[in-house]
Amino acid sequence: MFDANDTAMMHTALALARQGRFSTSPNPRVGCVVAHGTQIVGQGFHVRAGEPHAEVHALRQAGEMARGAAAYVTLEPCSHHGRTPPCAEALIQAGVTRVVAAMSDPNPQVAGQGLARLREAGIAVQCGLLETEARALNRGFLSRIERGRPFVRLKCAASLDGKTALSDGRSQWITGPEARADVQILRAESCAVITGAGTILADNPQLNVRAFPTLRQPARVVLDSRLKTPLESRVVQDGGSPTLIATLNNQPKSLQKYTNHQHLQILRPSELNGRINLHSLLALLAERGFGEVMVEAGATLAGAFIEAGLIDEIVCYQSPKILGGQGKGLFSIKENPQMLAAQPSWKTTLLEPCGQDIKWVLQK
Amino acid sequence: MFDANDTAMMHTALALARQGRFSTSPNPRVGCVVAHGTQIVGQGFHVRAGEPHAEVHALRQAGEMARGAAAYVTLEPCSHHGRTPPCAEALIQAGVTRVVAAMSDPNPQVAGQGLARLREAGIAVQCGLLETEARALNRGFLSRIERGRPFVRLKCAASLDGKTALSDGRSQWITGPEARADVQILRAESCAVITGAGTILADNPQLNVRAFPTLRQPARVVLDSRLKTPLESRVVQDGGSPTLIATLNNQPKSLQKYTNHQHLQILRPSELNGRINLHSLLALLAERGFGEVMVEAGATLAGAFIEAGLIDEIVCYQSPKILGGQGKGLFSIKENPQMLAAQPSWKTTLLEPCGQDIKWVLQK
Repeated sequence: MFDANDTAMMHTALALARQGRFSTSPNPRVGCVVAHGTQIVGQGFHVRAGEPHAEVHALRQAGEMARGAAAYVTLEPCSHHGRTPPCAEALIQAGVTRVVAAMSDPNPQVAGQGLARLREAGIAVQCGLLETEARALNRGFLSRIERGRPFVRLKCAASLDGKTALSDGRSQWITGPEARADVQILRAESCAVITGAGTILADNPQLNVRAFPTLRQPARVVLDSRLKTPLESRVVQDGGSPTLIATLNNQPKSLQKYTNHQHLQILRPSELNGRINLHSLLALLAERGFGEVMVEAGATLAGAFIEAGLIDEIVCYQSPKILGGQGKGLFSIKENPQMLAAQPSWKTTLLEPCGQDIKWVLQK
Repeated sequence: MFDANDTAMMHTALALARQGRFSTSPNPRVGCVVAHGTQIVGQGFHVRAGEPHAEVHALRQAGEMARGAAAYVTLEPCSHHGRTPPCAEALIQAGVTRVVAAMSDPNPQVAGQGLARLREAGIAVQCGLLETEARALNRGFLSRIERGRPFVRLKCAASLDGKTALSDGRSQWITGPEARADVQILRAESCAVITGAGTILADNPQLNVRAFPTLRQPARVVLDSRLKTPLESRVVQDGGSPTLIATLNNQPKSLQKYTNHQHLQILRPSELNGRINLHSLLALLAERGFGEVMVEAGATLAGAFIEAGLIDEIVCYQSPKILGGQGKGLFSIKENPQMLAAQPSWKTTLLEPCGQDIKWVLQK
């Protein structure tokens, strides 16, 4: 069904799509290659919402050469009029005779209609080439569409012995510059960074991308049941991206002092045992178009996300330092016998040195 | 000075030497290749103390072909009459015309005299090829001879969040079968496994090699200041290798019940602040010929070795399990601000998956 050239072309399309990983949200990352056999005549990727889709860039570059060519797309071409005209029509107009898609688009506005439209027009259509890779690339978008919640990554940093700080809270320099630079990439990939009011009070972090220019800063989501976030804190003062305060406090007066800041928004998730229901929070974030979020929080909030079963990926940086027995631990989670189960619930997907530290990535 | 063929031959000699890594102690691991150019005519390695040295095996195999050949040895040939005749004389008798040694032997009974004897006999002698590799292979032997204490490896196993057990002490199945099999190899390499009486009381471990047959089981060293080790414990009952009880208790009556067991020995290290002085302990172990020892102990003893600066290598197995905030930590060490120093004192020398777990090796 697919030959080696098809696979090579789709790999190229996936690499193109990856170039949009810091900017396409809430849209998926998509790449497109237009080729005659092994000869690429057009290629493109989607840069950001409101701008042309990958197919449009590739077809523009191909021009007349698109006629009789094959188009490789990492996601089913759209069939609906959104902010841009439907790509299925553009492919038909351009005269391509074959379309290979890595996967169909689960977005209910597309959902097979794009491929159907192409087939109606007499184009040879195939779907499913490198689908696993294509799904991994858009796991945030897919999670939002298919599960109604974002893909949640938990970032943590600890010493060799699993401590995040000395007992007095001091934690400077646990991980080295390479690990911190790597976190900047994870943030740039994220639609939002989630933290707790406790972290804002303790560390006053910016939670943005500073190591390199990026078309889009991640939003900040602060879980703050009782509205303790100081107005002086960086996430309140810095208007470089939206800051969402998720709270259970519904007193208009308390809320008003935050809503005076233009980039501040209030999220009203439901309550569960006196705390924010994390399922409700994630549903609200998905509704706002957030596909990939990263939790950068203290032991309590990180532990709560793990206990709720809502973490899809853990990225753990560990430093070859030893902080001893009194330091602060990674996760506050109540013990249960399942924790010792023979089969761990996490699987290592990446393990590599990161400067002086190690980077350990795990998925469920 | 050395060409590519020399390097290849020495690599072969090092690989031969490594075959003795479970058995040569207290002797060093040594390999020997006898060759004419690229043609190997004899090879051998030292198997265990009292049996022929590597050179003897290689020369026996080469027979008359040794005449005019080059001999590659991973350690300076001995010049003294020990349990076997001096290898320098054997090489001279066999008629080799060139000897390449990876390193000189720091053992005061040799210390350059082996190479000097060969030179006197008119043999071309060179030393220092792949010396770093040769030193690494015999780091235990070298530590004992050069520093007067064994090379100390600390083995630890923990969850992703640095816990060794639940708060009630339960710890079964933290790491998987591959990690446990790997520990068997580390034990087989060790002259002794060091633990504390607390671990004997809590887990009653055997601390021996069971996964594969080995010519020599490691000795067991139990730090037991107040002689609490039960006579029923496995390390007392199992005579498969010596068990050394290191104690501060000097009451003849208390000691006698241990010395009734033939394979039990008493070690009398000095005292430091009411506990066993670990420097004194290690000096005693070196005097007994122990070059490589492994600490497999609880948080208190492991922490004490780290605090004393006596750990040369940490082998840490980490499982992708999460045990939460109440579990037991890896090391009991008092905090100090140095722990957050920008430059960690440990360097990663190996990082790899080990079954479901990860294996992380660090050296100073």
